[in-house]
Amino acid sequence: MNVVITGGGGFLGRKLAERLSRRGRLRGADGNEETIERITLVDVSPSPQSSDGRLVYVTADIADPEVMQRLIDEDTVSIFHLAAIVSGMAEADFDLGMRINLDATRLLLETCRARGHRPRIVFTSSVAVYGGELPETVLEATAVHPQTSYGTQKAIAELLIADYTRRGFVDGRMLRLPTITVRPGRPNAAASSFASGIIREPLNGETAVCPVGEKARLWVMSPATVIECLIAAHDIEAGALGVSRILNLPGLSVTVGDMVESLARVAGREVTSRIRFERDPRIERMVDSWPGACDASRARALGFPSDENFDAIVRRYIEDELAGKPSA
Amino acid sequence: MNVVITGGGGFLGRKLAERLSRRGRLRGADGNEETIERITLVDVSPSPQSSDGRLVYVTADIADPEVMQRLIDEDTVSIFHLAAIVSGMAEADFDLGMRINLDATRLLLETCRARGHRPRIVFTSSVAVYGGELPETVLEATAVHPQTSYGTQKAIAELLIADYTRRGFVDGRMLRLPTITVRPGRPNAAASSFASGIIREPLNGETAVCPVGEKARLWVMSPATVIECLIAAHDIEAGALGVSRILNLPGLSVTVGDMVESLARVAGREVTSRIRFERDPRIERMVDSWPGACDASRARALGFPSDENFDAIVRRYIEDELAGKPSA
Repeated sequence: MNVVITGGGGFLGRKLAERLSRRGRLRGADGNEETIERITLVDVSPSPQSSDGRLVYVTADIADPEVMQRLIDEDTVSIFHLAAIVSGMAEADFDLGMRINLDATRLLLETCRARGHRPRIVFTSSVAVYGGELPETVLEATAVHPQTSYGTQKAIAELLIADYTRRGFVDGRMLRLPTITVRPGRPNAAASSFASGIIREPLNGETAVCPVGEKARLWVMSPATVIECLIAAHDIEAGALGVSRILNLPGLSVTVGDMVESLARVAGREVTSRIRFERDPRIERMVDSWPGACDASRARALGFPSDENFDAIVRRYIEDELAGKPSA
Repeated sequence: MNVVITGGGGFLGRKLAERLSRRGRLRGADGNEETIERITLVDVSPSPQSSDGRLVYVTADIADPEVMQRLIDEDTVSIFHLAAIVSGMAEADFDLGMRINLDATRLLLETCRARGHRPRIVFTSSVAVYGGELPETVLEATAVHPQTSYGTQKAIAELLIADYTRRGFVDGRMLRLPTITVRPGRPNAAASSFASGIIREPLNGETAVCPVGEKARLWVMSPATVIECLIAAHDIEAGALGVSRILNLPGLSVTVGDMVESLARVAGREVTSRIRFERDPRIERMVDSWPGACDASRARALGFPSDENFDAIVRRYIEDELAGKPSA
């Protein structure tokens, strides 16, 4: 079986590819485990080197119909559609967000429909679809009123994938991802970038600027747990999902203050002293529109994993990305 | 001021144009009433004759960018976007539904955005956006899970208009219309066509076939009340709507059995004896996925009108369309 990962140049895409390659198998259309022969990672960013012969990196624009045509063939039975213009960027460049978050998703669906082989598509939606006046804990039955173009485009993609699934064109599974933290690397244009930055930068001996207050509440998940959720969503039997193919993932509800306290417990006050609070109303508005807690009982009942607590997330980051030692 | 009505060849479009022409005024961008100079009705169907010099009928395809470009100029301060491929048709022809219900809506929004004059857009969405497991009374805060492509496309259009409004490209107002009954004329390809047919055909001395059972519950509104709601939605001050520009209209919750009883009370048992029940699973599935009752307290509080009861709807149809007398 061939697997395609869009946004494959991104942090999650690469992690997912490595994990899938180590795993070696995924469930096929008939529900039986099959051997993964090829994992194609497509992204606009330049392709990295890889010694893993199973991984094929392609630098291309997924909004280009010819690219999509080449990418998805009859053997592409599994697609992880992660590519996205992130929240801050989609707010700054409306057309770019529409092009990648909406048009490329539709193109992907249309290409699958034309092929007629009904691949599994795991789509990374986001809790940014929620917004407006929200209950303290948001349910899957809560209406979406996105307050960002990014959230709007994710909500539209959910509706499209649900209808293409209902009509039998694809076999879609949609996950509303919590804010992912701790991401390694550099800050990005996501409004939630600080949620990684306030842990990562201080651990690297650098100053982090936090654009929201200590009381801001986030729904978060570690990268490693998100990867396991993506694979679980792929492999789950369609019948177990029922009418709705959308799942809220079991994140953790934490305030920025909680996150800082975790960092202090794990790495010490000297590290947390490198966090500077400097409110940015543009970012605060976006972050405030997202839910601080979601009901994920359906995903939990279906066996999706979750993180133990935020201390564990910080420790895991130090182990995986800093070889166990903060640079401080 | 110039007004554009898409789907202007349809029954609602023509009624709305007549009503607006009689009224002569609508609120402009500054909130003050302005004189309507021209009402352009665009539709793919051939243009009817009209003696009203204010009405301009255009036969054209609204999914064509050149048509839209000509249609919406700087003086077009009000747009009633009613054009749609109806539920049964959008289910039968997926591409046609996507082209008109989704692409043409986006084209309309993009044309307005390029003009930069931020017109008021009243959009007719539908309770068909709801679906799946629904509470007995559906709230505006209830998540949409459309079970038809029509409902999916309407839900996507809502999200687009909401985001274009949030960004200041247009001033959108979205109404989730109940099933409209009694429509005059002939049956159409809407799955809800029977809701008019079981009243209209018997009153015309003809047999009506009802594809759903007597217990099927519908959320309905008369054409005259819908027209008043469209105008109210146009004229309402944006600030009164708050964060969400979507309103459930105050329909009536009736079963098919209630509707038949109303007809019997108003026109006699001889008339209702012309209704034949012949279940059609394809239609039943669509109708069952729609809510039988919606909470419309927000629209009520904002002063949107509603029908008194279903007897009044039947009587009004007989007065308006049959000159007071059923042909029976």
